[in-house]
Amino acid sequence: MTATATSTEYNQLIKTAKECNALGSTISLLHWDQEVMMPKNGIEFRADQISLTSRLYHEMKTNPKNGDLISACEANDDLVGDPTSASAANIREIRHGYDRATKLPASLVEEEAMLSSRGQSAWAEARKNNDFSEFQPWLEKIVNLLQRKAECYGWSEGGEPWDALAEDYEPGCTAASVSEVFTPLRVKLQSLLDDLMGSDKKPSNKFNELVLPIDHQKKFVNAIASQIGFDFQSGRLDESTHPFCSGTHCNDVRMTTRFHENNVNDAIGSTMHECGHGIYEQGLLFTNVGTPMGSAVSLGIHESQSRMWENQVGRSEAFWKWCYPKMGEFFGDATAHLSFDDVYGGANIVKPDFIRVEADEATYNMHIMIRFELERLLMKGELAVADLPDAWNARYQEYLGIDVPSDTKGCLQDIHWSMTSMGYFPTYTLGNLYCAQFFETAMEEIPDMYEQFARGEFGTLKTWLNENIHCHGQRFRAADLCVHVTGKPLSSDPLMRHLENKLKPIYGLA
Amino acid sequence: MTATATSTEYNQLIKTAKECNALGSTISLLHWDQEVMMPKNGIEFRADQISLTSRLYHEMKTNPKNGDLISACEANDDLVGDPTSASAANIREIRHGYDRATKLPASLVEEEAMLSSRGQSAWAEARKNNDFSEFQPWLEKIVNLLQRKAECYGWSEGGEPWDALAEDYEPGCTAASVSEVFTPLRVKLQSLLDDLMGSDKKPSNKFNELVLPIDHQKKFVNAIASQIGFDFQSGRLDESTHPFCSGTHCNDVRMTTRFHENNVNDAIGSTMHECGHGIYEQGLLFTNVGTPMGSAVSLGIHESQSRMWENQVGRSEAFWKWCYPKMGEFFGDATAHLSFDDVYGGANIVKPDFIRVEADEATYNMHIMIRFELERLLMKGELAVADLPDAWNARYQEYLGIDVPSDTKGCLQDIHWSMTSMGYFPTYTLGNLYCAQFFETAMEEIPDMYEQFARGEFGTLKTWLNENIHCHGQRFRAADLCVHVTGKPLSSDPLMRHLENKLKPIYGLA
Repeated sequence: MTATATSTEYNQLIKTAKECNALGSTISLLHWDQEVMMPKNGIEFRADQISLTSRLYHEMKTNPKNGDLISACEANDDLVGDPTSASAANIREIRHGYDRATKLPASLVEEEAMLSSRGQSAWAEARKNNDFSEFQPWLEKIVNLLQRKAECYGWSEGGEPWDALAEDYEPGCTAASVSEVFTPLRVKLQSLLDDLMGSDKKPSNKFNELVLPIDHQKKFVNAIASQIGFDFQSGRLDESTHPFCSGTHCNDVRMTTRFHENNVNDAIGSTMHECGHGIYEQGLLFTNVGTPMGSAVSLGIHESQSRMWENQVGRSEAFWKWCYPKMGEFFGDATAHLSFDDVYGGANIVKPDFIRVEADEATYNMHIMIRFELERLLMKGELAVADLPDAWNARYQEYLGIDVPSDTKGCLQDIHWSMTSMGYFPTYTLGNLYCAQFFETAMEEIPDMYEQFARGEFGTLKTWLNENIHCHGQRFRAADLCVHVTGKPLSSDPLMRHLENKLKPIYGLA
Repeated sequence: MTATATSTEYNQLIKTAKECNALGSTISLLHWDQEVMMPKNGIEFRADQISLTSRLYHEMKTNPKNGDLISACEANDDLVGDPTSASAANIREIRHGYDRATKLPASLVEEEAMLSSRGQSAWAEARKNNDFSEFQPWLEKIVNLLQRKAECYGWSEGGEPWDALAEDYEPGCTAASVSEVFTPLRVKLQSLLDDLMGSDKKPSNKFNELVLPIDHQKKFVNAIASQIGFDFQSGRLDESTHPFCSGTHCNDVRMTTRFHENNVNDAIGSTMHECGHGIYEQGLLFTNVGTPMGSAVSLGIHESQSRMWENQVGRSEAFWKWCYPKMGEFFGDATAHLSFDDVYGGANIVKPDFIRVEADEATYNMHIMIRFELERLLMKGELAVADLPDAWNARYQEYLGIDVPSDTKGCLQDIHWSMTSMGYFPTYTLGNLYCAQFFETAMEEIPDMYEQFARGEFGTLKTWLNENIHCHGQRFRAADLCVHVTGKPLSSDPLMRHLENKLKPIYGLA
């Protein structure tokens, strides 16, 4: 790590970035409070608070003085000469954010806000009525708007409109680079799924049929969160309908999870997942708070952390060696009838199905690939919105071998497109891919990691993540971070090895 | 109520006021979250968030465009001709706030922020060490600063510097007007205290010696809060070290209370008190949110509402007729040994003592009068800070007949002066006075109110308060509201009647 070069302009730029962040994180608190704490009748006024603070935030961020400061810093070789220095990374990413925020005309921003709000209503209604035709005109407007938005942003030579949108979520990522990993992944995944589905041995479903008191589940997942290293002095775990993690800053991380009496597996998975996000946020450095060097790299890298704790750790045999005997402490006799295999196998059942958010670790990626392919075609104008349901259903048949029974369970299931988010979906599978590749490297460097998990020791992995990934903030873009940490560009092999090594034995195919 | 006159300038003024309020209420949420939800390590960054949003708020509020809008509105007789019209009240109070915010030079505001912060540290240390001399130089600086601040604000002819400071908390209130009610109150209160303390009959202290599980206490006070009419769809009740109510707006009111195993009486009192603040906030009209017509009148009037539910309702014989039998439901056998008189009497014990925040309903006012007299003299320059401890102790001997054992239990007990708040203390007793006078009027208009309380019915009182006090927002200043509601200017008689009628029978003097 090189010492940070500095200058008056640079100091001013950092000060402004920190101020923007103080306001931005206030907006995140307004959202968190709305989901977790706010009484029901507070909603109308909360919208006013969020809209006002968002306007002030946008004004602060797009102030032309910032543009001047950035240009002055970019011209200073002491600051940007070494592209992996803290100052160069801060300047590069502040420039990125400034350009993104200033490239769109106000009329388009307003149009998008309006379309997003109306689009979501239309989508919710269409989904309820299983009637794609109600959503179709809105999605057509949305695609048209997003094509214009992509034009405003622009994309690299040889690229395509989708790239311009993905840049918001995964800077530097292109449809071509995604395809390069997704295509081999799909082929190998299909073959694995064929093997698993063809096997006579299936894990028992008993674990997923348990009914356990929610009070006990809460104590259980809180204990797990503490054990794996989430710091409750610097964060909270609450409840909400859709679990999320909102990183105000590394010393104040707000996570949520959810509980159903008949689904402790979901509570554990959601909690481990959000803890992964939370541990990432807590691992950023407070000295860098509010600057790119104190911020997460991208949605894909964020997801790599949540998936690692959810899947690589939380669905591993080693984790359950520690966790299975713990269950008695929290649930008494209610779990005594379950064998180790019932629990470990039950947490790893693979089953091709229609709904993304209920999908298992393996098939999940197929859901994402289908969405990526379709949104890419929509953005290129090579698929008409009217043809979306057929294209969707054909892919579910081809990739997962299932017949989608209705648009509600098909192309109307996700909210993302209705809120004008395209370019977002792939970050979920990119997360799985980065995760597996990082984890393989960690495993090479800490050969007894699984033995540690089996003893309830998760600190070595957490420290490894802190030192290799979290502390860098945005020093590296995602693809570069991958090379920096693992020595290789992103590949589908580690994820496939992970899935095969774990799932084949469970399905009697080892 | 007259229809609101309107104009382009007026509409713009109201829009700006609402925007200021959306930001101001965001700052209140940051504070609420800090006290109630924020993890311990969040504190450093939270200070940055509050300081940034406060700066933006101040800039919005003191924008010279607002001054122009106010002047334009003031020149429009349709808007201000009728001084009790909504438009006139809004313009009057927006002018008041604008002038207050713009009259102080930035250097003085900064100096005050710095002194407040350092003064509090010095005070905390001095209190811990029982060493007034550590705080003395800071209090001297604070008094000097407040004298200059008062000069900037100015005061009416015949008034004095204290008036200029009180204006922040109780607009329109002067030291002379406070003295006019406090002086007779003190004389009559001393005579009542002599009678009570001279009586052989004392209420039992058993109720205050109870040890009850905090879980049960929580359910109990939540049930009480619901029963008296706090709307949990439009608010929350949480816990904090010092109970408070932070009114974001009428549909989202955040209250806190506190629990000690051995003090259910305190939990009930604190909850009733904060519910009084909360019910006031919920009684403001949402259509007026963010404008003076949708805001509470003053701290004194706010306190009149909290004290009403705490004392006039919550320590009444009628309330306990409903509440006493309820205790068994929540505490089972743990309260079975208490008689009605143990509980009702135990909630009404009077005992002159040193500490304001632990004082009973009657002696409390003596604590306030002492502080008021001393801060008035300090502000006039008629009492040197060095002489404060002696002056304090002499008054405790004279008014309450007790010898203050140490400065920690004497003039170092309260945080207020150390944070540069003078002019604030009297609002507590003004609250008690307004409360008693309002309640007498309510009782005249609802003669069976106590019978209703005894049946657990509190809705008639709540509606009366909604219609006579809450819905007006700041249409009237406090003194005018008092005349409007009760037909008479504020007097010490209703409070004395209330205390005598209740306490004398309890002490066997009826």
